Amino acid sequence: MFRSFMPEALGEARAAALRGEVPVGAVITQGSQILAAAGNRTRELRDPTAHAEMLAIRAACAALGQERLEGCAIWVTLEPCAMCAQAIAHARLARLHFGAEDPKSGGTIHGARVFAHPQTHHVPEIHEGLEAAASAALLREFFSGRR
Amino acid sequence: MFRSFMPEALGEARAAALRGEVPVGAVITQGSQILAAAGNRTRELRDPTAHAEMLAIRAACAALGQERLEGCAIWVTLEPCAMCAQAIAHARLARLHFGAEDPKSGGTIHGARVFAHPQTHHVPEIHEGLEAAASAALLREFFSGRR
Repeated sequence: MFRSFMPEALGEARAAALRGEVPVGAVITQGSQILAAAGNRTRELRDPTAHAEMLAIRAACAALGQERLEGCAIWVTLEPCAMCAQAIAHARLARLHFGAEDPKSGGTIHGARVFAHPQTHHVPEIHEGLEAAASAALLREFFSGRR
Repeated sequence: MFRSFMPEALGEARAAALRGEVPVGAVITQGSQILAAAGNRTRELRDPTAHAEMLAIRAACAALGQERLEGCAIWVTLEPCAMCAQAIAHARLARLHFGAEDPKSGGTIHGARVFAHPQTHHVPEIHEGLEAAASAALLREFFSGRR
């Protein structure tokens, strides 16, 4: 078992908050090596698909020069939405670690529950709860600061 | 009511097949104007997120310089998967027209049924069946040619 990379994912989420982006961060690892790390950049890039997970998946695929990330893990501070969950399946990521649950917009263990259907052809091992309090606090602070 | 842009989407799907990609095409329109057109490029770009819809959404957002495509329509030859359906919601596209159903991998009217959950905060008007036979035939030919 490898150490948790959630501290690095949280660092990406904090950096996103400083850029004025919804603070979510993601890291992709192969064994004990970080292949890619990204924070949410939907505003900066004016791209509704630029969630942390999507940017990390694209960067990790570019780093390896392949469209599948078999054997790799993704560490995300928040439960992925349906878009990101399906991208995780398309990328064949072996493990998904996420921090806080997202009952409002999640698509992994809430809502669309992307991995619960036979139309999703790959299901990662899913672990939740690592640094969940810190992840949720970051989001809460961000949204309360904007009110 | 505007004319159908499914012929243009089918043209993108045919071009994808010629590149050795799974033949799916997408077009995004604003009124009677095409903002973006794309075919699947997952292999060429070695990017599992490079579905036709995702590339078209990103290109249309870049063309308008904004992360939302309110009032715009997307025309896709095949039922979107959960990733693309959720991206359509994130982009706030007003209408989704798709050709063939995809009982095996779809996430719009099959599987995750992304728009059927309160966690998906925007639901486009959905129209299906335009050029469905041509779209399905293209996919069938592509996969039978590879066997």
